[in-house]
Amino acid sequence: MMQDTFYKITMAQLGYAQCLDNGELEAWPEFFVDNCNYKITSDRNYRKGMDVGILWADSKGMLHDRISSLRDANIYEPHKYRHILSQPLILGEDNGEVQSETSFLVIRIMRDGPMDMFAAGKYMDRYKISGEGVKLQERLVVCDSSHFDTLLAIPL
Amino acid sequence: MMQDTFYKITMAQLGYAQCLDNGELEAWPEFFVDNCNYKITSDRNYRKGMDVGILWADSKGMLHDRISSLRDANIYEPHKYRHILSQPLILGEDNGEVQSETSFLVIRIMRDGPMDMFAAGKYMDRYKISGEGVKLQERLVVCDSSHFDTLLAIPL
Amino acid sequence: MMQDTFYKITMAQLGYAQCLDNGELEAWPEFFVDNCNYKITSDRNYRKGMDVGILWADSKGMLHDRISSLRDANIYEPHKYRHILSQPLILGEDNGEVQSETSFLVIRIMRDGPMDMFAAGKYMDRYKISGEGVKLQERLVVCDSSHFDTLLAIPL
Repeated sequence: MMQDTFYKITMAQLGYAQCLDNGELEAWPEFFVDNCNYKITSDRNYRKGMDVGILWADSKGMLHDRISSLRDANIYEPHKYRHILSQPLILGEDNGEVQSETSFLVIRIMRDGPMDMFAAGKYMDRYKISGEGVKLQERLVVCDSSHFDTLLAIPL
Repeated sequence: MMQDTFYKITMAQLGYAQCLDNGELEAWPEFFVDNCNYKITSDRNYRKGMDVGILWADSKGMLHDRISSLRDANIYEPHKYRHILSQPLILGEDNGEVQSETSFLVIRIMRDGPMDMFAAGKYMDRYKISGEGVKLQERLVVCDSSHFDTLLAIPL
Repeated sequence: MMQDTFYKITMAQLGYAQCLDNGELEAWPEFFVDNCNYKITSDRNYRKGMDVGILWADSKGMLHDRISSLRDANIYEPHKYRHILSQPLILGEDNGEVQSETSFLVIRIMRDGPMDMFAAGKYMDRYKISGEGVKLQERLVVCDSSHFDTLLAIPL
């Protein structure tokens, strides 16, 4: 039933955003299945079919590695994020696999106070709903702007 | 049942936003019934009861004409939009006709990268739910600011 | 049933946002139970466990007083707000009491036109669902930035 699916996907991605916005980066990989795909790219590259990403990972282990590097580099500290999400547009569901698309705005808040629009774009997702809950098989983060701040440290 | 209505309206207006954000302007009129009303106005004019709009149409044919003009003028190319929607507030439902109100933020992304808040406001909608799906009978776009950029080319 | 709860909480907080965005401040306290808690604080203070708020009230009467002061001071007039809400993350439900968390962005629109991001953060809420409808028992507004404009006049 599509409403049930909508509710589950909604809660899953709100949890994902809450995790990042609270700075609990070590918990972030748990929103994915082991064999996952995660990539951040720009709309320009996505439309050109260019398989390059600003950040990518093809397993949960790589997501953990990414977070460890961030923690070591210690560059993520002076700012935090706030994800504002439109609702998920459910594109299809088959045998526990759900495709959805969600527009997002990420606001960055620097430690000394000022806020700016850090990134806007869409999540193109494949979720797996099973006894283990709702997990991302794939999240492709397509950012509208091709200009990226060098501070792209916290995952989107 | 209101939850079912909420789900249908949510999917309909996410589809509408996706259509515009993907630049598929020719498909936009299909979110309306033939005999539709569409108007963009400012909150100031709306409160004064002034029946003037920045852009208006009273049939699906006029919506198509509007898009053709845009394509001819070619002015829409250097930028794109990202709609971030609050959820629809369902105000009433009667015999397949639903009234709802939805707050929106439209972010504009220029080709060379920078983003700005282009418009914020609310959609005041009347939807028709029938065998043909969920279609807009009326969308009144009330923008909070009275200042409009001359680049108001893509519909909101 | 969680979906039913999700729908009720969604409608309640959209109504709350609509009330403020329409400037109907006198109706705002009616979204709370008599014996309510309302507080605006910063993320920094919230994390430090500091029990200081930028604005607080512990009864519906105090909320009414707050609005009366605003109306008398007349400082709220030159601007308005637009709330853009993520969906509510339902954290738990017990005996008609619901805990939820919702990310928000509040855009401020000055009378002469310009818009800015006024506040972003999260609502940490306890709702009571009863025969009288859905009311807030507690709303803790945690703002991401510690910098507050002196124009913090309309409630968040």
